[in-house]
Amino acid sequence: MTVRQLPLPDLVAHCVRLGIPGVGLWREPVQEYGIEAAAALVRDAGLTVTTLCRGGFFTTDGWEAANRAAIDECVALGTDTLVLVSGGLPPGSRDLPGARARIAAAIGTLAPYAGRRGVRLAIEPLHPMYASDRCAISTLDQALDIAEHFPAEQVGVVVDTYHLWWDDRAPAAVARAGEGGRIHSFQLADWATPLPAGVLDGRAQLGTGTIDLKAWAALVEKAGYAGPVEVELFNEELWGRDGVTVLEETVEAFLAV
Amino acid sequence: MTVRQLPLPDLVAHCVRLGIPGVGLWREPVQEYGIEAAAALVRDAGLTVTTLCRGGFFTTDGWEAANRAAIDECVALGTDTLVLVSGGLPPGSRDLPGARARIAAAIGTLAPYAGRRGVRLAIEPLHPMYASDRCAISTLDQALDIAEHFPAEQVGVVVDTYHLWWDDRAPAAVARAGEGGRIHSFQLADWATPLPAGVLDGRAQLGTGTIDLKAWAALVEKAGYAGPVEVELFNEELWGRDGVTVLEETVEAFLAV
Repeated sequence: MTVRQLPLPDLVAHCVRLGIPGVGLWREPVQEYGIEAAAALVRDAGLTVTTLCRGGFFTTDGWEAANRAAIDECVALGTDTLVLVSGGLPPGSRDLPGARARIAAAIGTLAPYAGRRGVRLAIEPLHPMYASDRCAISTLDQALDIAEHFPAEQVGVVVDTYHLWWDDRAPAAVARAGEGGRIHSFQLADWATPLPAGVLDGRAQLGTGTIDLKAWAALVEKAGYAGPVEVELFNEELWGRDGVTVLEETVEAFLAV
Repeated sequence: MTVRQLPLPDLVAHCVRLGIPGVGLWREPVQEYGIEAAAALVRDAGLTVTTLCRGGFFTTDGWEAANRAAIDECVALGTDTLVLVSGGLPPGSRDLPGARARIAAAIGTLAPYAGRRGVRLAIEPLHPMYASDRCAISTLDQALDIAEHFPAEQVGVVVDTYHLWWDDRAPAAVARAGEGGRIHSFQLADWATPLPAGVLDGRAQLGTGTIDLKAWAALVEKAGYAGPVEVELFNEELWGRDGVTVLEETVEAFLAV
């Protein structure tokens, strides 16, 4: 998503050229390219598919079929992790605890199926500014409160610096997640203000914002996480530029932080 | 601030006409009008000054003199509560725990002075989306962790629905604040998306957003709060319209929720 302007074959070729060992994919471009074709493309290049984004939106009709399909796509792509963006309030609702209960119940429905398919569901707490319309799970502790009802090989969490950096309880929650073997993905993006209208596309290039990314990396490492580190920037300015250049800049920024 | 387009005399006159018994004032318009003149205007109209906004910005040079002045202005206006917006990261800093420590230390410096002047400092946790640039205190528990070092008549908190509605731990924190007699202000604003650029001026009219305001009022009441309820909307659309009309609409919306 950081370089969504790059067609999938270009993305794969430049990841290989730049020494990026794995890539997190999103469902829409994969579906457009063809799932089997995408799987072959990435596999033949020797890249790992770190995660598939995204399942979730459990407060929307049709969530069950959509999420079973997403789990199946993980299997086809050879990734073991499906990132969940859980969904916000149903239209017209003000019942945030109710939305959270629906999310927990939906994950309970899906977890055994995911486990049988060898796919881990990774609940991603999103920044509280998305609580109404995208994700009612706003903190790592909330995500863990749900995940811990299930085996870690079925359900865990995503630690994303952009969403969690403000939370004074997040360091303890990262340790809690690590103890349970539940950090299924670690994602980096930096925070910068002013936020753009709609607040979706303001994730800043690593090192240009206010998040102490080195401290976060140390925190996650101390919690026992040794998996891939993803860089996930939603940023209109980056999307408007040459994708290869942005990818190269991102590698530099990643190495610098 | 909800009707900042209204000159102070008009605001006072229409509050009286509409049966609004008190008003929260902001420092800038009061200073422009003259503090003694503003105090006389409000007092002669029989209105209470519920709070003065705002002190704080403790991570900025000059915070001590500015906050002592704000405390003195509270005394002059006859209000017992100064709302604190604590400030974000200093320029170039990524040290959020350090900013929070500075805020706690600054409040410790001011609290005895406020107490001697008969003014309560009210720490307002702001929504986490303001953590970098306006207020590093993002949850009610964080605010209470600081406030509880001091007597309640020196330091308490503001419960503002706009800033806290997303937090699953806020109901317990409201009870905690109530037990300690530390709810020094209760403010209402509704949450609506999409947020505007900069995310400052998107606070929605009561009843038009996603916050269960009745549940919040019940929560605060159950915690023992019996003080004034303020409506604080930052909203470009409302500021662009006739202030008297907006004030009347706000009274209706308040009574409806």
